Amino acid sequence: MMPQAPLVWNGLRPGEIVTESQMAQDATVQFIGTIHTPWADPHACPKWGDEVDGPVCWINLHPRWQPALKGILAKDRLQLLYWLHLARRDLLQQSPRSDGETLGTFAIRSPLRPNPIASSHVRVIAIEGPLLSVRGLDCVNGTPLLDIKPEGAALKGDLSCPCA
Amino acid sequence: MMPQAPLVWNGLRPGEIVTESQMAQDATVQFIGTIHTPWADPHACPKWGDEVDGPVCWINLHPRWQPALKGILAKDRLQLLYWLHLARRDLLQQSPRSDGETLGTFAIRSPLRPNPIASSHVRVIAIEGPLLSVRGLDCVNGTPLLDIKPEGAALKGDLSCPCA
Repeated sequence: MMPQAPLVWNGLRPGEIVTESQMAQDATVQFIGTIHTPWADPHACPKWGDEVDGPVCWINLHPRWQPALKGILAKDRLQLLYWLHLARRDLLQQSPRSDGETLGTFAIRSPLRPNPIASSHVRVIAIEGPLLSVRGLDCVNGTPLLDIKPEGAALKGDLSCPCA
Repeated sequence: MMPQAPLVWNGLRPGEIVTESQMAQDATVQFIGTIHTPWADPHACPKWGDEVDGPVCWINLHPRWQPALKGILAKDRLQLLYWLHLARRDLLQQSPRSDGETLGTFAIRSPLRPNPIASSHVRVIAIEGPLLSVRGLDCVNGTPLLDIKPEGAALKGDLSCPCA
């Protein structure tokens, strides 16, 4: 039966398929900090971060990891991995347009995934102690941080690059 | 004291600094498949995957997640996230050249990280049932898979793109 009420962010939309197997717990992640953004709930988040014109967001790194920032000032672009703590994890197929047409979870970049880990590239604005300000994020305020990496090397034949 | 024996992959090198705080266990990940590569141990792995000339590697997705591949044949480039299960997780500063000069863990793409999650872009060769063959991986045989995503959109002013 199709729901009559507006669909919630984490609810099921027409045609969507879930796995009913119990979730395995194969390894644990530790949160290394918290991301502060202007978006108070997932509905308000943009679909994509914008590292040029998007708002400045703050990362508050746990102080124990502050020594791991040594040398990062030389990087002006970073890859962040973060944990989408509000996402359901059992969706096999999703209907992004809520029209009953579905795509597999692995064919879309939806936040609803078996392991709700997001990956974004951001531009660094400033770093002061354990606080980093960046542009390019897309997640809800309070999202836990998993990792900070310098941007990966350009790849051979990069399809995202129009001149490659 | 500097070790006399050859340094093992997961051992401490001169100058390296670890955190001694207990690791938090804030959330759990589930392994969704296994990656098969030609590299039997971490010493043998390349520093970077090569999605043009690298060897073909196999991903064996757990059958429960096979329905989540629907629509993925339209994508010829994917982002994979995988769990570097052999990596130590307590390094704050690392000495990539083993010379006592250190960089923070977040300033390098070392596999040794608080959350040992690798992110690579790969080119799809073929998909047959729950088996995917791809080029571009860099990890040890048997590495657990965490996620498959279509490649992210090209970003404004992409610094990895020489014509941007």
